[in-house]
Amino acid sequence: MRIAVDAMGGDHGPAVTVPAVIEILDRHTAHSVILVGDETEVKAELKDAYHRFGHRLTVRHTTQRVEMHDPPSMSMRKRDSSLRVAINLVKEGGCDGCVSAGNTGALMATARLVLGTLPGVDRPAICTALPGINGHTHVLDLGANIDSPPEALFQFAVMGSVLVSALENKERPTVGLLNIGVEEIKGLDRIKRAATLLQASHLNYVGFVEGDAIYQGSVDVVVCDGFDGNVAIKSSEGVAKMIMHFAREEYGRTPLTRLAGLLSKPVLRAIKHRIDPRRYNGATLLGLKGIVIKSHGGADSYAFTHALEEAILEGEKGVSQRIAKEVEQGLAGRPD
Amino acid sequence: MRIAVDAMGGDHGPAVTVPAVIEILDRHTAHSVILVGDETEVKAELKDAYHRFGHRLTVRHTTQRVEMHDPPSMSMRKRDSSLRVAINLVKEGGCDGCVSAGNTGALMATARLVLGTLPGVDRPAICTALPGINGHTHVLDLGANIDSPPEALFQFAVMGSVLVSALENKERPTVGLLNIGVEEIKGLDRIKRAATLLQASHLNYVGFVEGDAIYQGSVDVVVCDGFDGNVAIKSSEGVAKMIMHFAREEYGRTPLTRLAGLLSKPVLRAIKHRIDPRRYNGATLLGLKGIVIKSHGGADSYAFTHALEEAILEGEKGVSQRIAKEVEQGLAGRPD
Repeated sequence: MRIAVDAMGGDHGPAVTVPAVIEILDRHTAHSVILVGDETEVKAELKDAYHRFGHRLTVRHTTQRVEMHDPPSMSMRKRDSSLRVAINLVKEGGCDGCVSAGNTGALMATARLVLGTLPGVDRPAICTALPGINGHTHVLDLGANIDSPPEALFQFAVMGSVLVSALENKERPTVGLLNIGVEEIKGLDRIKRAATLLQASHLNYVGFVEGDAIYQGSVDVVVCDGFDGNVAIKSSEGVAKMIMHFAREEYGRTPLTRLAGLLSKPVLRAIKHRIDPRRYNGATLLGLKGIVIKSHGGADSYAFTHALEEAILEGEKGVSQRIAKEVEQGLAGRPD
Repeated sequence: MRIAVDAMGGDHGPAVTVPAVIEILDRHTAHSVILVGDETEVKAELKDAYHRFGHRLTVRHTTQRVEMHDPPSMSMRKRDSSLRVAINLVKEGGCDGCVSAGNTGALMATARLVLGTLPGVDRPAICTALPGINGHTHVLDLGANIDSPPEALFQFAVMGSVLVSALENKERPTVGLLNIGVEEIKGLDRIKRAATLLQASHLNYVGFVEGDAIYQGSVDVVVCDGFDGNVAIKSSEGVAKMIMHFAREEYGRTPLTRLAGLLSKPVLRAIKHRIDPRRYNGATLLGLKGIVIKSHGGADSYAFTHALEEAILEGEKGVSQRIAKEVEQGLAGRPD
């Protein structure tokens, strides 16, 4: 497999992306990477690693970069940006997928333009796994689509289901639909209509779930509109940060609490590890003709390697092809 | 002040509501309470406390109760339910407010029917405070309204602002509008239009905020549609529960971690206290002609006293009257 990596994306550019790529090339000796970005900057980060991997590592020079605040329209005019060229390489450069920490709007818009959506997919969606008490849950959409109609929510369910099925070798992943209250009488009309579509499908649809289901890990896939998914994920981040902040304050209060904190270090590290957003870095843009992985903009190298791993895993499992097949077979709306 | 309390509401009924009322009557010697519910059950819980408070404590017998799963239409047919009669007592029984742990839909529907909305208020909203790193934030709406139009979101902002101003003696509370991404270009059309209304008002509007702002405590009021508010709060609960679960697991792993857990007890208790949802129990139904406080259905007595305190505080501060005045003065949409 060959992965194209937008070396300039994110808050830190090559300082983060290059060490992550080196790590990945060391781990996966059968795969190769094309680093896309300013040749001088990228090579400065690569140092002697540039020669270590032979043909498995190439640098593709670009002259432009998409800024984090560039609106999609602006970003698409930058035809020689590292983000754009990385996607081009998936389209026609023999790459099996690409990874970028560039801005989400630009990445999605450019990927749609260059790669196009799979036949039958109306709207690509952003999906990521999140940690939960009983294993993790995949959530989509996380912000690519707002005001999604029932048919779009249904397609998210299909794509999420195929993704989990492929990545985790699950026969029939469970799918929940995000709503408020689990009673049938509540919730938005378009969500109720999506529920009707899901009930009539062959998906393993389990019904409405509320936001807390994400972190219980009680379902494999939670489907929602991008606005709601984004609200859920951002609120969750806020709570986690608040609890960590309070823990630091409380452990720092007196010599005795500081001692307790010292003794608790392995425990606190273990908890932190289990919810570490870096381990869940790498949201996938589903429904496109190709693998496009979005890393968090603020990712460090450790986090960025997870995004690279996601691209490799999706390539190995043929996620994009499997979604194409499912959608093509007219799954959408087909009763069992 | 006199508060009407739905003694039968919630998962535990009088076993929870009665001890909380006794606690409140002990704390506030100038206030009185009418306990509404099955006289036998309520008096069995009251025991000798029934006589201790003299005229400050009365029991109003009712024969019906609203179940947690009753749809609003069904609950409204129960004219002698403790929930309904508690609200009636605000309307015409000389009570200054009422508190119920009964189901939200029933409480809102009955309160709208019996008390009515304040002149100029289109949709009442549910509002609660949530803990944050820099002090708490009031969030509304939390589920009373879905698909709220811009004008409704604007009214939520007005009501939330008046509430915080009254409760916390703040001159001009800051107001943020929940959106995805803080860039102007993102988000739903109705949210953008609400932003335009807010910008033209005399409210202290600070712009778009994301879900994490709630727990930073960076704004006094976060305004959102009820669907999104509910998603935010439920997701947050899920994360907090997950972290607590992981902490229990990790501290229980080995003799050494158990020792660390033992030494950390005061710290963990302090953290738990700071995010304890029981301390934030008591959501207020804003925009009605009277004070109606909704306690969590699963509340214990400690949590229920907080809901009672909220009713007393709102009564003392004249929240309902102040909102009425603001709305009546034609605040809505009035440019500065």
